[in-house]
Amino acid sequence: MEKIAVLGAGSWGTALAMVLNDNGHHVSLWTNNQIHADEINKMHKNSAYLPDVTLPNSIIAHVDLKQALADTTAIVFVLPTKAIRSVCQQVKAVLDHQVTIIHGTKGIEPDTFKRVSEMMEEELDSQFYDEIVVLSGPSHAEEVSIKLPTTVSASSKSMEAAMHTQNLFMNESFRVYTNQDTLGVELGGSLKNIIALGAGISDGLGYGDNAKAALVTRGLAEIARLGTAMGADPLTFVGLTGIGDLIVTCTSIHSRNWKAGNMLAQGNTLADVLAQMGMVVEGVRTAEAAYHLAKEKGIDMPITTAIYEILFKHANAQEAVDQLMTRSRRTETDEVHLMLEQHYQSK
Amino acid sequence: MEKIAVLGAGSWGTALAMVLNDNGHHVSLWTNNQIHADEINKMHKNSAYLPDVTLPNSIIAHVDLKQALADTTAIVFVLPTKAIRSVCQQVKAVLDHQVTIIHGTKGIEPDTFKRVSEMMEEELDSQFYDEIVVLSGPSHAEEVSIKLPTTVSASSKSMEAAMHTQNLFMNESFRVYTNQDTLGVELGGSLKNIIALGAGISDGLGYGDNAKAALVTRGLAEIARLGTAMGADPLTFVGLTGIGDLIVTCTSIHSRNWKAGNMLAQGNTLADVLAQMGMVVEGVRTAEAAYHLAKEKGIDMPITTAIYEILFKHANAQEAVDQLMTRSRRTETDEVHLMLEQHYQSK
Repeated sequence: MEKIAVLGAGSWGTALAMVLNDNGHHVSLWTNNQIHADEINKMHKNSAYLPDVTLPNSIIAHVDLKQALADTTAIVFVLPTKAIRSVCQQVKAVLDHQVTIIHGTKGIEPDTFKRVSEMMEEELDSQFYDEIVVLSGPSHAEEVSIKLPTTVSASSKSMEAAMHTQNLFMNESFRVYTNQDTLGVELGGSLKNIIALGAGISDGLGYGDNAKAALVTRGLAEIARLGTAMGADPLTFVGLTGIGDLIVTCTSIHSRNWKAGNMLAQGNTLADVLAQMGMVVEGVRTAEAAYHLAKEKGIDMPITTAIYEILFKHANAQEAVDQLMTRSRRTETDEVHLMLEQHYQSK
Repeated sequence: MEKIAVLGAGSWGTALAMVLNDNGHHVSLWTNNQIHADEINKMHKNSAYLPDVTLPNSIIAHVDLKQALADTTAIVFVLPTKAIRSVCQQVKAVLDHQVTIIHGTKGIEPDTFKRVSEMMEEELDSQFYDEIVVLSGPSHAEEVSIKLPTTVSASSKSMEAAMHTQNLFMNESFRVYTNQDTLGVELGGSLKNIIALGAGISDGLGYGDNAKAALVTRGLAEIARLGTAMGADPLTFVGLTGIGDLIVTCTSIHSRNWKAGNMLAQGNTLADVLAQMGMVVEGVRTAEAAYHLAKEKGIDMPITTAIYEILFKHANAQEAVDQLMTRSRRTETDEVHLMLEQHYQSK
């Protein structure tokens, strides 16, 4: 049995803490909010993020980071993208022993276009860990918290770190596979939130499953196009962390990106939507980052562009989606084909 | 304006007839059932298959095939797989002029493992048409009949035939793209019904979106594996007729394969389910064909095998799905990777 710190007591952090606790590990769940920590320790509830479950008594919440990290063998970062740098700096100030560093955050930094693991590498002290592990896949926290079967990927350039993560989390209902393409896993996990916003907009406009399936299919192609141009393995985008995560996010009532898109289509402004949600909607900032990144790299991302214009340029949602639908193309697979052909022939 | 015959007045045939009629064509809708034809011609309803829509008066139903085919420029076959050969024989007996032959049937013949276009080529007189066109993609008939946006693929070895089909069907809400990989399009369209049965079983067992996304992701990989071994372009499986159709079939309440799987998981026998559905459930016979085909070709298809055993060998659905979930694998993308690498390097 090991001691693991989970940093961030949102829905996903709490669900992962429950998996680790089920596997017999000692889990300290860190939050910077004393009221939140008190509720977890005294009431064994997380009413803001996972209202329907009772937490095991053995999960202990901490607001003191040094206490949370004491004697740990692994630290799992499950924070909003914008909190990653500051919490890493706090960890650096107190961490004094070797650990496995894992993160489960899906986002891209808007100004630098950096992935979460890149931000973490810049902020953490490299002498205390090997390579960062990314935990990603189709995994609604609500389902994991009630032990519904879930399959995710632990991705790292270090096979040892990936396997440590696999051993910590793996059980009957939570299956973990290893993967070495952290770039593709992180890009797939973050960029899919843009397509989920689009799926919510399509549903919110009253379009059906046919339109949404076409949107998701083309969304996958444009995500893979950007990812491959950045050096990711195109195959990662047809795996669990690509198409798997995309499906679950675009078709599930649990997805907050889908919900935000749905509200946007009904005429709410972005500010209204974010105020009403009260949770982080990673897809919004990711759309901004991806829009600029695609421009910089000269990659064609029509769905991302449409979402960006709806979010930030007051484009009309109906017109933007209709324009996507009637966009002319040569044939169906030409572009993706060319991309994969180049990838494999350059090997 | 052209005269088109649609053979088969089920939900998909009727919806396609409505699209052609919207585009100004003269449509004869053939059915072998006089009561069915009378309802369409007199009441302008198709209560058994598309109960919620009123058909335009200009769609004329025929039970006389010779009348239906008179002066047509294209014939659209939208029949259950098991009716394809006999209707083709009837068409051969009366067709006396050049037409474009299109089909929208998703299935594989159980004993011969033949695709629908192959069965058609064996039965029709080749002097009266060029290459067969396959119309496929994420397209619930119910949505098409009320003009919700839909995107499909017209696939043929003859670009001319594919473009004729595109011109006939294309309009503002029904978008048609051309494609030349008929093998991949037909295999993707039929094999996806097996995965839809699996998705229905997973949902029927009370599993959630995480499990279903993992199942669909792996389902796509095994479909692509078989398809590529048979000579299809692997890229077709990540397009509209592959992943697009798979998503819509596995996540929509309209899908009859999903419904059948759902009922099986609740303990109904296959005979009960088929009797209660009263519609063709193509996935059942396709699962049988694919199971034997995979064995013959030495292709690993764990989901298809599990579904086959639930359908025909009285395997317990819960045990079969749990076994799929905990199946060991090396890493996530190894096999698919190898397959694509071989495909592109052999070019």
